[in-house]
Amino acid sequence: MNKQATAQSARLLYGSSEYNADILYFSKVFVPDAFIALEVGGKRLGVFGALEYGRMVKESKLDLVLSLEEYQEKAKELFRKKGVGPTEIIRVLAKEYNINNFLVAENFPVGLAFDLKKARLHIQVIKGPFFPEREIKSKAEVLELKQGNAASAVGIRAAEEALRHTIIKGNQLYLDGKVLSSQRLRGLVDIACLQAGAIPHNTIVAGGGQACDPHCIGSGPLRPNELIIVDVFPRLTTSGYHGDMTRTFLRGKATEAQEKLVSTVQEAQKKALSKVKEGITGAEIHGIVVDYFIKSGFITKKVNNHYEGFFHGTGHGLGLDVHEAPRVNASNKEGLKLDTVVTVEPGLYYPGVGGCRIEDVVQVKRNGYEMLSNYHYAWQID
Amino acid sequence: MNKQATAQSARLLYGSSEYNADILYFSKVFVPDAFIALEVGGKRLGVFGALEYGRMVKESKLDLVLSLEEYQEKAKELFRKKGVGPTEIIRVLAKEYNINNFLVAENFPVGLAFDLKKARLHIQVIKGPFFPEREIKSKAEVLELKQGNAASAVGIRAAEEALRHTIIKGNQLYLDGKVLSSQRLRGLVDIACLQAGAIPHNTIVAGGGQACDPHCIGSGPLRPNELIIVDVFPRLTTSGYHGDMTRTFLRGKATEAQEKLVSTVQEAQKKALSKVKEGITGAEIHGIVVDYFIKSGFITKKVNNHYEGFFHGTGHGLGLDVHEAPRVNASNKEGLKLDTVVTVEPGLYYPGVGGCRIEDVVQVKRNGYEMLSNYHYAWQID
Repeated sequence: MNKQATAQSARLLYGSSEYNADILYFSKVFVPDAFIALEVGGKRLGVFGALEYGRMVKESKLDLVLSLEEYQEKAKELFRKKGVGPTEIIRVLAKEYNINNFLVAENFPVGLAFDLKKARLHIQVIKGPFFPEREIKSKAEVLELKQGNAASAVGIRAAEEALRHTIIKGNQLYLDGKVLSSQRLRGLVDIACLQAGAIPHNTIVAGGGQACDPHCIGSGPLRPNELIIVDVFPRLTTSGYHGDMTRTFLRGKATEAQEKLVSTVQEAQKKALSKVKEGITGAEIHGIVVDYFIKSGFITKKVNNHYEGFFHGTGHGLGLDVHEAPRVNASNKEGLKLDTVVTVEPGLYYPGVGGCRIEDVVQVKRNGYEMLSNYHYAWQID
Repeated sequence: MNKQATAQSARLLYGSSEYNADILYFSKVFVPDAFIALEVGGKRLGVFGALEYGRMVKESKLDLVLSLEEYQEKAKELFRKKGVGPTEIIRVLAKEYNINNFLVAENFPVGLAFDLKKARLHIQVIKGPFFPEREIKSKAEVLELKQGNAASAVGIRAAEEALRHTIIKGNQLYLDGKVLSSQRLRGLVDIACLQAGAIPHNTIVAGGGQACDPHCIGSGPLRPNELIIVDVFPRLTTSGYHGDMTRTFLRGKATEAQEKLVSTVQEAQKKALSKVKEGITGAEIHGIVVDYFIKSGFITKKVNNHYEGFFHGTGHGLGLDVHEAPRVNASNKEGLKLDTVVTVEPGLYYPGVGGCRIEDVVQVKRNGYEMLSNYHYAWQID
C-alpha cells in the first residue's frame, strides 16, 4: 500500500466478525476476538495478534494483514510507554497512512472513540448503514441466501413430519410414545438445520397462547387443535448468511376462527408479495397488510399487558444479519432498491384463537421479486 | 419505581441481548433487536416495542417493562417532532427519573453516545468490565457452566468415537465407507452438542498443518498419524452460558516428536492447574507454561508469515461470553479473584509435527480450584 503524503479519510472498524456483520462483510472471515480493521486508499487492512496472524494471511480477503505485536512495539517506541492498546495502535496507523479523519459506524465502541478523540484524532460517525452496499445482494450472496433458506425449509419439514407422526391422546401429542414438547420439536428442527449446514439460534416452536408472543420460542407440551408457529432463521456455518422462514401448523382439527385467521394471513402475504418491486416503500407494503387485516375484521390493540392483532413489521432485510436494512414497516418511507432482499411475514395473534405467521424471503426486482425461500403452505395436519 | 427529586446516576445499556453478554446478564432474556435498558435507583428497567412487550412482561427478570410506543408518544409531545429514536426516549427517561449522568460500557454504540451528548446529557464511559460482578460465578452459574462443559464433552466424545470407528486406507480415514473430513467430523460434534442442549459455533476440528493455526476450524480430509485438535465451545440454548474444552487426538501411530509434543502440553496443563488459586495472577500462571515449554526445548518464534511454538494466552474467563475476564495471559498482572472461572489451555504448534492443545475449565478457589469440565486425556487411537 502506498503511504500518502496528503491527509486522507479512512473507515475504521473494531470488533469481532462473529458478532458484527459489517466486520464480517469487510474481512470475510470469522474472528472471535476484537481486531482493528481499516479501509484506506481503497485498500483493506487488519491488525492481528500471533494467535490469528498466520490464519489471516491464509484465510482473510484483506489486502494487508499486519502483526499486532509489531505495531505494539512501534507504539511503545513512539509513545514511550509500556502498556499500549487499540488507541495507540490506531494512532500509529493514523501517522503511517496520514489519516486525518476516521469514519466509524454508529455501533463503533464509544470507549475507543472517546480515547481516539482525546488523542486528537478526528472521528466521524456515519449515520445509518456503514456499508450501504450490503443492502444490495450480489448473485453470489443470493446463492448463499437461497442455501440459508433451504436449511430453514429442511428445519420446517422436520417439524411438519414430526407433527404428522404424532398420535393425539386427550390434550397431548405423542411422538414415538413420548409427549411432544416445544423443546423436543425445536431440537428436531435445529438438528435438521445443522445437517443442512446452518446454525440455528432461538428457533421458535410455539403453540397456543405462547405463539401470541411473536418472539416466544415456546416451552412445554404442544397441544392438538392449536396453531403452532415454526420460525427458523439459521446462519450458514461457512459464510454467515441467514435463512428466515416461518410456517404455522395445526395438528388435529381447526376451528372456524383459526381457519379464518390463517387464511387471512395467507391472503395478506399474497397481497404484500404482489406489490413488491423496485421503488415501492416498505411503508406502502406494510400498509397493504395493515389495511387488509382491518378490512377483514382483525383489529390491533393493546389489551392490559399485551398486544393483540398485528403488531410487528411486515418484514426486514436479510443477509449477514438476521434483521438488517431495508425494513418493511411503517417507518421506512424510502423506495426499496433493486436487488435488496427482504422477508415478507405478516402475522395475526389473538390469545384464545392463536397466533399465525407466514414468512418468505424475496429479492426485489425491477417489476416484481424473485422468491428465495420455498416451502408449501398447507397447514392442517389431521 | 419512585421518581427522584435529586439528580442521580444511571447505568445505560443499548443493544441486543443475543449479541451483548452484559445486556443478557442484565435482562436474563434473549432479545434479537436492540433495546434500551436502565439501572436507576437500584431498579432495572427496559423499553420494548409491541413485538416484545407482552413476552418481556412474562419472561424478563426486569423490575419494570416499559412500552416503547408509549415513550415514543411522550417524546413526540415533549420535543414536538415526529421522528423520535432512542436518543429522544432516553431524554424522556432522563427527565422522568431525574438522571444527570449515564454510565455506559466501553462497547456502548458511539452514534447514540454522541447524540446524547449533543442533547446535553452527560455520558461517562466505564473502563473495563461494566458489571465487574460478572467475573464472580455464583453457584447457579457454576451449574450452567458445568452443563455447558458437559455439552462440550459430549461433542468431544462424538469425535473420539467416530475416529475410533474409522478405517485407515493409505493416507485417508474412512468412516462408514466414506472419507472422513473435518467438516463431516465437525457435523457429528455439533449435532452431539445440540442434542446436549447447546449451540455450537465454529467448532474446531483441524488436523496436521491446519491445527498449527489455533483458530483454523479445519477443512478437507483428516489424515491418519496426524494430530487432530477438537475444540468445542457451545452455548447453552436456555441460559447463554458456555462450555469450552479441547482435546487432541491421533488416529494411527504417533511419531516420537508427536509424543513429546503432546506429553509436554499435558504436563504444562498440570503445572498450570497446580498453581491456580485465589490471588495468583494470570501472568504468573501463563509464565509457568511459557517457562516449562522453553525448558522442554519448545521455542516460540515468528517464521516468515506465521508463528510457531506457544503464541496464545494460557486461558480466559468463561461465562455468557466465550472469552471474558479474567484473562490468564502475560498482560493480566492482577490476582485471580475467588470464584472466577477460567480455561487452562496450553498448546504447542509446529508445522511438520502438528498442533496440540488441551483445555479444561476451572473455578478459582481459596486454595486451589474446582474442575468444571471432565473428559479423559488418552489421545492415541490405534
